[in-house]
Amino acid sequence: MAIARKIVDFMERSSWIRKMFEEGAALKAQYGADQVCDFTLGNPDVPTPPEVEEELIRIIKEPIPMKYGYMPNAGIPAARQTIADYLKDEQQTEVSADGVIMTCGAGGALNVIFKAILNPGDEIIAPSPYFVEYNFYADNHGGVLKSVAPGPDFSLNLDGIAAAINEKTTAVIINSPNNPSGVIFPAAEIAALGRLLEEKSKEIGRVIYLISDEPYRKLVYDGVAVPPIFPVYRNSIVANSYSKELSLAGERIGYLALHPEADDFRQLVDGFIFANRVLGFVNAPGLMQRLVARCHGTTVDVSTYQRKRDRLYAGLVAAGFEVKKPQGAFYFFPKSPLPDDVEFVRELQKFKVLAVPGSGFAGPGYFRLAYCVDDATIERSLPIFKEVGEKFCRG
Amino acid sequence: MAIARKIVDFMERSSWIRKMFEEGAALKAQYGADQVCDFTLGNPDVPTPPEVEEELIRIIKEPIPMKYGYMPNAGIPAARQTIADYLKDEQQTEVSADGVIMTCGAGGALNVIFKAILNPGDEIIAPSPYFVEYNFYADNHGGVLKSVAPGPDFSLNLDGIAAAINEKTTAVIINSPNNPSGVIFPAAEIAALGRLLEEKSKEIGRVIYLISDEPYRKLVYDGVAVPPIFPVYRNSIVANSYSKELSLAGERIGYLALHPEADDFRQLVDGFIFANRVLGFVNAPGLMQRLVARCHGTTVDVSTYQRKRDRLYAGLVAAGFEVKKPQGAFYFFPKSPLPDDVEFVRELQKFKVLAVPGSGFAGPGYFRLAYCVDDATIERSLPIFKEVGEKFCRG
Repeated sequence: MAIARKIVDFMERSSWIRKMFEEGAALKAQYGADQVCDFTLGNPDVPTPPEVEEELIRIIKEPIPMKYGYMPNAGIPAARQTIADYLKDEQQTEVSADGVIMTCGAGGALNVIFKAILNPGDEIIAPSPYFVEYNFYADNHGGVLKSVAPGPDFSLNLDGIAAAINEKTTAVIINSPNNPSGVIFPAAEIAALGRLLEEKSKEIGRVIYLISDEPYRKLVYDGVAVPPIFPVYRNSIVANSYSKELSLAGERIGYLALHPEADDFRQLVDGFIFANRVLGFVNAPGLMQRLVARCHGTTVDVSTYQRKRDRLYAGLVAAGFEVKKPQGAFYFFPKSPLPDDVEFVRELQKFKVLAVPGSGFAGPGYFRLAYCVDDATIERSLPIFKEVGEKFCRG
Repeated sequence: MAIARKIVDFMERSSWIRKMFEEGAALKAQYGADQVCDFTLGNPDVPTPPEVEEELIRIIKEPIPMKYGYMPNAGIPAARQTIADYLKDEQQTEVSADGVIMTCGAGGALNVIFKAILNPGDEIIAPSPYFVEYNFYADNHGGVLKSVAPGPDFSLNLDGIAAAINEKTTAVIINSPNNPSGVIFPAAEIAALGRLLEEKSKEIGRVIYLISDEPYRKLVYDGVAVPPIFPVYRNSIVANSYSKELSLAGERIGYLALHPEADDFRQLVDGFIFANRVLGFVNAPGLMQRLVARCHGTTVDVSTYQRKRDRLYAGLVAAGFEVKKPQGAFYFFPKSPLPDDVEFVRELQKFKVLAVPGSGFAGPGYFRLAYCVDDATIERSLPIFKEVGEKFCRG
């Protein structure tokens, strides 16, 4: 065996996802990509704002010494300061630039955080449904992810979280707006979670961190805002990226921010910087750091996503699907009309519609549709969903 | 304790390096940065070629759909193909684009490789002196780095490597041109290493990979070339980056390439792609991938480094230092005139010269000078080295 046993095991266990991708690719090859409605990929399709591209060109033309050279592992001071300033409003807390570390997207941020806080066998609690990569991120650093089923309408299940906490619990990770459910956890739920973690930390005699993975924070609709976590809990960490708010997913630029009053602030920050360095990130991509130092606060045209959401939501509801209207992100997470969501997604393939089973997000019984697709795909899908609904949802 | 025990331990053990950095920073603050000769940082200072920056601007202006979006975790096909084509000459082997994976620099590549091949407790052998981050990279993924002392003049010590191999050995990692010694391992040494690994793999009944970390491949002088590893050993992997050859160190762009005839080629490639994904890299920065797809083969002006090397080498030799003339990279690794290299580097600080002790590279008894600095620093250092030499090297 030339490859690590665990990797083989992981690849085998996730092979059904790969298989579905391959089936989707085969469908596209057979019928033509434009004949297949592909709702599987959360790849932001609203363009990066032109003023951001113009700024990028300006930076390249500026005579900055060692422009593309190494920099402090924590990032360019200007980027860290810009974000700290911005977080004062967003997190309603006086944030220190020392606590902001530039990372290779939110995926990089989460790996850095997990590496810095996990001892072997430590547990991280994730309310489901959640981004399934969290499992691998925890495992990378010797930890274990523990899933907690959600409350009604994908709300935070505080009793479930309380019951899952034990002396090995290191952190609770939330994702709001949520991938895949589109739910934003309201302020009252977040505040109650903060109180719970405060109590439980005392009870078990160790800090339980609250990690808030927020890459969809700016993709919100109907005037709803994502409540901040810093005011409700001191030992909290934000992970964020510009993947969605500036459609820069492939450029791998994001950050983490530690609450300024977190326990052992300095040591933890040093741990994050060390982890960022030795995991091979070294530093977040430099040119993109310079860019976000100037463009933080700019956001893609969110109304485009809202329009697509509204159009597809109306179609799904009319077709008889049971689906919560998402307040943020760009996913629907409808209930599967068949008990087995993998089976239903296979049925959808027969209609040339590609979706991801909820099982891929620790949310069996549902399926995910990413609506960051072109309007033509949505329009083409509407009569198909109607037909599918007639077959599976009316009964 | 809010932070993982291992991280605390690592940070404490490497605290002397930090302490030296802090002492250096204090010196600069006290005397002014331009009064201190700082030879500690391997940060390429020869500018990125202007045609590369122009190409970057052209790419930004092109109407490429989803230009900054997610892409396959292995990278943009055009970049992988360009590099594969190029490697045909460089590695004198027909390389498949399937075996090329774009990474977040060579540091990212090495973490991806280690993650994919290491089972808990597996060992990686590194001939010293070596880039000390290898220790952390191996540990990140449950492995252990084993150092093997070099032969004369920092040559490969094949007997030492042979003696270090056991049933836990997963790979041997070499770095040529070497950081810190500047040595290029000659073709005969590489060929002998290939034969040794062939034999030993059979003997222990598992594949021992040869990993060649080659970020300095293009920074070579006096017409010397770096011999390829693919022709001498089938189970070999190249890790490389554009940090030095295009002075893009902060942009985190590099790649790994697997020998097309490696055992279990497909499974290993899938393992690399999986590791690239779940470690949080997701993909190498996209814009830089597009750039190297077009600019691979372009190199910074290496004659600048050669000029600096020649000037400083003459000065060091005249001052009485025992130092091998480096054939590549941008470092000198002179013998420390005091038995304790850390003590000698502290002495150098008194002369306002900053260097790194060889102990930081598993090469005690030596010290490293990075000569990727401006000419003024080199000129200012020459009389100082003369004075230091008179005090420590004569007599």
